[in-house]
Amino acid sequence: MIYWDNNATTPVADEVLEAMLPYLKNKFMNPSAGYQAALDVRRAVDEARSQVASLMGADPDEIIFTSGATESINTVLSGMLQRFGPGSIMGTATDHDAVLHVLAQDNNRILPPSTLCPVDQQGVIDQSVWKKRLASGSVCGVSLTWANNETGVIQDVLSLAQLAHEAGVLVHVDGVQALGKIPVDLHRVDVDFASFSAHKMHGPKGVGALYVKRGSVCPPLLYGGGQERGVRSGTENVPGIIGFGVAAQLAARRLQDETRQLESLRNSFEECLLRSLDHIRIMSSAVSRTPNTSCIAFCGCTAQALLLLLEPAGLLCSAGSACSTSHPRPSHVLTAMGLSNEEARSCVRFSLSSQTTIEEVELAAGLVISAVRRVRLAQSSRTGPVLVYRP
Amino acid sequence: MIYWDNNATTPVADEVLEAMLPYLKNKFMNPSAGYQAALDVRRAVDEARSQVASLMGADPDEIIFTSGATESINTVLSGMLQRFGPGSIMGTATDHDAVLHVLAQDNNRILPPSTLCPVDQQGVIDQSVWKKRLASGSVCGVSLTWANNETGVIQDVLSLAQLAHEAGVLVHVDGVQALGKIPVDLHRVDVDFASFSAHKMHGPKGVGALYVKRGSVCPPLLYGGGQERGVRSGTENVPGIIGFGVAAQLAARRLQDETRQLESLRNSFEECLLRSLDHIRIMSSAVSRTPNTSCIAFCGCTAQALLLLLEPAGLLCSAGSACSTSHPRPSHVLTAMGLSNEEARSCVRFSLSSQTTIEEVELAAGLVISAVRRVRLAQSSRTGPVLVYRP
Repeated sequence: MIYWDNNATTPVADEVLEAMLPYLKNKFMNPSAGYQAALDVRRAVDEARSQVASLMGADPDEIIFTSGATESINTVLSGMLQRFGPGSIMGTATDHDAVLHVLAQDNNRILPPSTLCPVDQQGVIDQSVWKKRLASGSVCGVSLTWANNETGVIQDVLSLAQLAHEAGVLVHVDGVQALGKIPVDLHRVDVDFASFSAHKMHGPKGVGALYVKRGSVCPPLLYGGGQERGVRSGTENVPGIIGFGVAAQLAARRLQDETRQLESLRNSFEECLLRSLDHIRIMSSAVSRTPNTSCIAFCGCTAQALLLLLEPAGLLCSAGSACSTSHPRPSHVLTAMGLSNEEARSCVRFSLSSQTTIEEVELAAGLVISAVRRVRLAQSSRTGPVLVYRP
Repeated sequence: MIYWDNNATTPVADEVLEAMLPYLKNKFMNPSAGYQAALDVRRAVDEARSQVASLMGADPDEIIFTSGATESINTVLSGMLQRFGPGSIMGTATDHDAVLHVLAQDNNRILPPSTLCPVDQQGVIDQSVWKKRLASGSVCGVSLTWANNETGVIQDVLSLAQLAHEAGVLVHVDGVQALGKIPVDLHRVDVDFASFSAHKMHGPKGVGALYVKRGSVCPPLLYGGGQERGVRSGTENVPGIIGFGVAAQLAARRLQDETRQLESLRNSFEECLLRSLDHIRIMSSAVSRTPNTSCIAFCGCTAQALLLLLEPAGLLCSAGSACSTSHPRPSHVLTAMGLSNEEARSCVRFSLSSQTTIEEVELAAGLVISAVRRVRLAQSSRTGPVLVYRP
């Protein structure tokens, strides 16, 4: 099986699990307790904090551990909304549902386009609109996505944050898909808040981080025992935190050694498809993307039909973010980039990992080419479109 | 080492860790993804939901998995506060900080006593005040603690919830210290919401449950991908949830077989101390307590001095809840029961587990007796009180 859905979640690295195990066994103490064995656990949590901070160019005391990026995002943005009022925070049209639904304070309501900054056809934030909205005076905070989970497109966080700060506006960045894939240096880009998740970078599920720039204020979303310097109460998920720390260390090493190779594998895959198939379009290919992500529109196919063929053939990929798998509507990310609903429904996301090999790339390319041809043949045989209903 | 701080956290049971491991290794898929391997993970999550529901006398579709009890409590109570307004929810004076600080929406502010229901000297909620406050018409919701983490005292949830419902008031119960220690049947006691944590019952840290009675409405605290039927967004902590399920199964077995034995071991410990030491007082001993908990005031000693001797002797216990270890103020639970600050500071909490043996009990009793005698001797030698400063 070729697992190419690493933007949905990643396997836990062996070293990560190994580091977690003692904290799932004999080092189980509550890090808030007073005895030495508990203080040792506390020290390990703080070491993980340093490891995570180091990967993102932050200081350890700027890192709050949470249960995941969704909680991090909710903490920052709910706090901002409470402070500045509804409608005061501008997101971008291609943000993850976690951002869009916090801003709407509703999992179903779609925000009006006027409260979101649009993107161009490559998925890049439109800086002229960004500036105009900031100048309007109605925006008190902005949230943007460093790297998009569907297309991999990378925003110019440095410039966008600078523009926001010049307008006196607070900046949150959703760094989930950036961390571990591209260099992330929070002090350099100078955002106020940033959200991250361990399980997108070979760490465990159930743990994330919230960066709060020194001097910035983030009111808690979870009140209680006052853990994490009062910003996030609740007994710490110690094994998860330890795992996140080691995952951060591994990612730092990968970033140096393997990023270019991963990008070249991804490019080989895309070139192979472009050589063999007409009428395909690679999303955001003209701009910077995360090295592992390839989102491709296969004209005349639905992604669901392709996935139906690819899964039994041994290639696991997706038609967008995992959270939206059960939603019938086309990806809001792709429609915001100007794709029609039909085009958006034809897009498959392949998200590779540093474990991906050239053999996998060749095999996967062959499977995709064959699947696209079969679906197109079926479509053209006058049987009508291939529709797939979930059981 | 004798670990008698199981109300702070518990070691993960071997069976729990074993069940988690596959989900930390090859079964890592995002349960929201569409392929079969992910649907298998989804099915395992739902099996854990059934296991957890079964332990608490609930239906699986009434269980929302969260990152822990603090999140569960915050979700319910923040939702109620938003709906009914500040001051509309009555807690009890001996609730955990997670409840008290959510109600205050502040980790440091102490609520005025008028918004909390008092308890008697045994720690039992005063039903006459409970009724009076409910009749006042200013209370829209109540929160109470099934079993207290410091004293183990068990409230009459059935009667208190019935009184609240007769007054048209919603009921949340903090069941963290009850689940797995005493029978919990949510349909019988008929509360609207209940909060639980896995790591207090030999499950992993980082996972909890929120019970939402069928027909009750709980707005989300975390918005995003819409997981957990929209009540709790965020990629599920799958290994944690699987572990919680198995921990619930084990607890159900223990409840049948081992509860009486545990209670008798705890009682032996207390009898042994009572035989050998004057001027000690066992908290809540005249009423129903969880079978593992013993909170004892040692007149003339500070808990900190006793812990200082007990830890190197090999007995780990605590001076109250772990979250408050670093706070200098005396336990609000004990002062609410009428203890003076000095008496409250003399209390040590011993929280046993089903792994506790009679040999441990005898050894621990000897260590405690000897420590109390040493501290009392030091106190009476005119050197003044033994004060312990944390490094």
